[in-house]
Amino acid sequence: MDKNLHALFAPENIAIVGASSNPQKAGYTILENLKNIGYPKKIFPINKFEKRLSGIPCFEKLSQIPDTVELVVLITPSEMIFEVMEDLSKRMEDKGDVKVIVCAAANYGETKTEQGIARQNCLVDTAKKYNIRLVGPNCIGVIDNINRVDTTFVETLLPKQSRGKKGGISFISQSGAVAASILMMGASQPAPISMNKFISIGNMADVDFIDLLEYFEQDIDTHVIGLYLEGYQEGKKLMETMARITRKKPIVVLKVGRSEIGAKAANSHTGSLAGSDAVYDGAFRQFGVIRVETIEELLDTLQAFDQCVLPKGNRIFILSQAGGPGIYCTDSFVAQKNLEFPKVCSKTKELLAECLPDMANICSPEGYADITAAANVKHHIESLRIVLEDTSVDGVIFITVVPTFLPQKELAEELVKLLKEKNVSKDKPVYICIMAGNYVWQAREILEKNGIRTYDTPVDCVKAASHMVTYHQFLQSRGEDGNEQIFE
Amino acid sequence: MDKNLHALFAPENIAIVGASSNPQKAGYTILENLKNIGYPKKIFPINKFEKRLSGIPCFEKLSQIPDTVELVVLITPSEMIFEVMEDLSKRMEDKGDVKVIVCAAANYGETKTEQGIARQNCLVDTAKKYNIRLVGPNCIGVIDNINRVDTTFVETLLPKQSRGKKGGISFISQSGAVAASILMMGASQPAPISMNKFISIGNMADVDFIDLLEYFEQDIDTHVIGLYLEGYQEGKKLMETMARITRKKPIVVLKVGRSEIGAKAANSHTGSLAGSDAVYDGAFRQFGVIRVETIEELLDTLQAFDQCVLPKGNRIFILSQAGGPGIYCTDSFVAQKNLEFPKVCSKTKELLAECLPDMANICSPEGYADITAAANVKHHIESLRIVLEDTSVDGVIFITVVPTFLPQKELAEELVKLLKEKNVSKDKPVYICIMAGNYVWQAREILEKNGIRTYDTPVDCVKAASHMVTYHQFLQSRGEDGNEQIFE
Repeated sequence: MDKNLHALFAPENIAIVGASSNPQKAGYTILENLKNIGYPKKIFPINKFEKRLSGIPCFEKLSQIPDTVELVVLITPSEMIFEVMEDLSKRMEDKGDVKVIVCAAANYGETKTEQGIARQNCLVDTAKKYNIRLVGPNCIGVIDNINRVDTTFVETLLPKQSRGKKGGISFISQSGAVAASILMMGASQPAPISMNKFISIGNMADVDFIDLLEYFEQDIDTHVIGLYLEGYQEGKKLMETMARITRKKPIVVLKVGRSEIGAKAANSHTGSLAGSDAVYDGAFRQFGVIRVETIEELLDTLQAFDQCVLPKGNRIFILSQAGGPGIYCTDSFVAQKNLEFPKVCSKTKELLAECLPDMANICSPEGYADITAAANVKHHIESLRIVLEDTSVDGVIFITVVPTFLPQKELAEELVKLLKEKNVSKDKPVYICIMAGNYVWQAREILEKNGIRTYDTPVDCVKAASHMVTYHQFLQSRGEDGNEQIFE
Repeated sequence: MDKNLHALFAPENIAIVGASSNPQKAGYTILENLKNIGYPKKIFPINKFEKRLSGIPCFEKLSQIPDTVELVVLITPSEMIFEVMEDLSKRMEDKGDVKVIVCAAANYGETKTEQGIARQNCLVDTAKKYNIRLVGPNCIGVIDNINRVDTTFVETLLPKQSRGKKGGISFISQSGAVAASILMMGASQPAPISMNKFISIGNMADVDFIDLLEYFEQDIDTHVIGLYLEGYQEGKKLMETMARITRKKPIVVLKVGRSEIGAKAANSHTGSLAGSDAVYDGAFRQFGVIRVETIEELLDTLQAFDQCVLPKGNRIFILSQAGGPGIYCTDSFVAQKNLEFPKVCSKTKELLAECLPDMANICSPEGYADITAAANVKHHIESLRIVLEDTSVDGVIFITVVPTFLPQKELAEELVKLLKEKNVSKDKPVYICIMAGNYVWQAREILEKNGIRTYDTPVDCVKAASHMVTYHQFLQSRGEDGNEQIFE
């Protein structure tokens, strides 16, 4: 593991060059985010015109900070890079302490102008000379929720208690805007997602996909890796790295530039040659990399891998509180070619018939039950328990449209109790959808705060289940049994 | 137009048989919903054990109400149906005033038991004898936001000011749970959706798809019709009705039971023979019925048709504030086979270059621009205006990830101003996506409250645009020009 890269996530003090008192500036938000996440070491804002920022004393220059500084965040206008690099050189000759630069500012190599390229060269050359790793430029920075580092200028509205929450997802984004969207969408869930490590890599002038994949490969806190990918020059090396990692941890990728026109736009954007999408697609399949199509599916799938056990097979039962949503779910279930409906034993059917309202539809078709709107909380919980206990069931998709007359708080609490019971869902994932907009926010919040992901729609459950089954099948074909290694 | 059916939406007084004081009962919520929507005529709760409910005097029996009652809502336990029908007969012999029954209770024909069928027969026979139309049983009822009727037991959390809001979407659902989900999801948007008329038709013992489609065909307040469909016995007649209507108004359908297993579940649910999905699919295409795949797509598409002008062609420009989301959007744009990127004239490109930041990507590829994170409010607004003014552009997909340093309120207000300007988007739809979760709720609320739909993701914009283009192309192929007729 690259020791300097480690300082990106757990630096001994951080300097922010371009910190600002103006809330409309990125240099303001970066400082606020670092404070809000509770970064435990020292922060040094660099600003020539301010004495203090957000209560913290400012320095005029990097070279003046007496303490050790391992991470430098640059958010100055790009024209100033020459001056800043000169001062950094001075510091490095003196102290030699800086290990990583995050250059969040844009207007560098991505502009493809002579000036832009000259600015990026200055940055890269200085970093290289002093053995400093460089993230960016043209990125939104880095978050580490375990070590409490946040150098981004994205105001996620993430509640304070969620910052620092332990999650197993680490993410790399080639687009700052997609990165920002993912952070903000994740923060808008019933229980906000807390990424383990999160990086927007921008122009990849130095630190790139492979550096970070290798880092996450070794990082025991990372259980699943997510990527937003536009394109990468060294496609073969990227695939080899991924192929090695997927034997140990799942990788979920949103790769854009599928179409020729999309690829052209990608080239205009990050200057990356997207490469043939069909080649990527084939390699992803071969090496067990899970490819998703949308940002929502990306977030769902990452959380499914992080929070659920991997199913031991592809027989997933659909247990629905209502017919319409159940049929709707069945259609998308069948469309995923790798899922099967389990045939439960007659004892299970008898138990369900005993437990459920008369109107319930039990196993017509097989592997499907509609417990009906007459089902109370006990019917929900007991039928789920019965289905989970059947040995032919590898996992359950559980759908309910909480009617006005069903106490949603009680339902959620009882679900939490059941799923936390030893042995009940030990090796069987349960994908829960409570489908009634904000009306059921309370129930979803209770479940998610207890580490049980809920999905917006039955289709989202099906996709998450299908991706996990795909990964299970990949591990099996490789003679690995993922569960023990990944989800200790 | 069936005059009795008209009383379903604009009844002269309503009786609720089975109104309740217990908030855990559907009979409680129905009464509350009717009061909350501001139903302007008289409500008569029927309950043997209460003197008043929610401040309104109760009656013991239907036959005792002295005033005219045109709509009767039944939410009593199904076993009581014989008694209730006997009393209704008494009333009809006396006064003959009831025109419609909504039977919200379940446990009738759908159970396929002897008792269930007998109960449904009693209900149907009584209604038929007195020429009363019957909705249900086993449904969640009816909403008319114009006439302020709400007989459902779905607590949508719809804010009071949204009830009674004028919207042009009328909807028919064959599943009560899907209906409830749609209502609740629609109520959870930045500006809650207000359906014009909304019906859950349950077992269709009398009033069915065709009755309501014909009603909506004639209803001048209905601009677009939505359907959730599991199956219908008289498929040919349904298609003929739809084929007639789509020449005047768009119909958007979520049809489930695509797969054989899904169809089997549908049969178990509403007893309907789903019929071959391929036959439905072909007929939908032939007759210009828009088929969607998910509930979210259904809501998006209905609102797009209701709020946007129909494009005059298929050349849709993608204007994005960020590269990643733009490329992501391009991929799904290309996947929709009926959309094309416009080739704007060189004057338009020059104007964009003058107006936008240096870093902007203008028309590489054609029909696409990335205005970059450096774009301020003016850059957003002016570039949109320039693109809309190009004659080769039939519509615009506008994407922005509002960064922390861009004032979102101002952006939304300026967008509203631009799109309300006469002639700017007169015959060109603009599909707006502001993609950053709850962080941009304020901007989306401002737009939506001004009748400008915003979409959760770029993919949602693309789908809505594609469906509207499909409908435009259908009308063209039929030699109709939909715009004038539909969107006066």
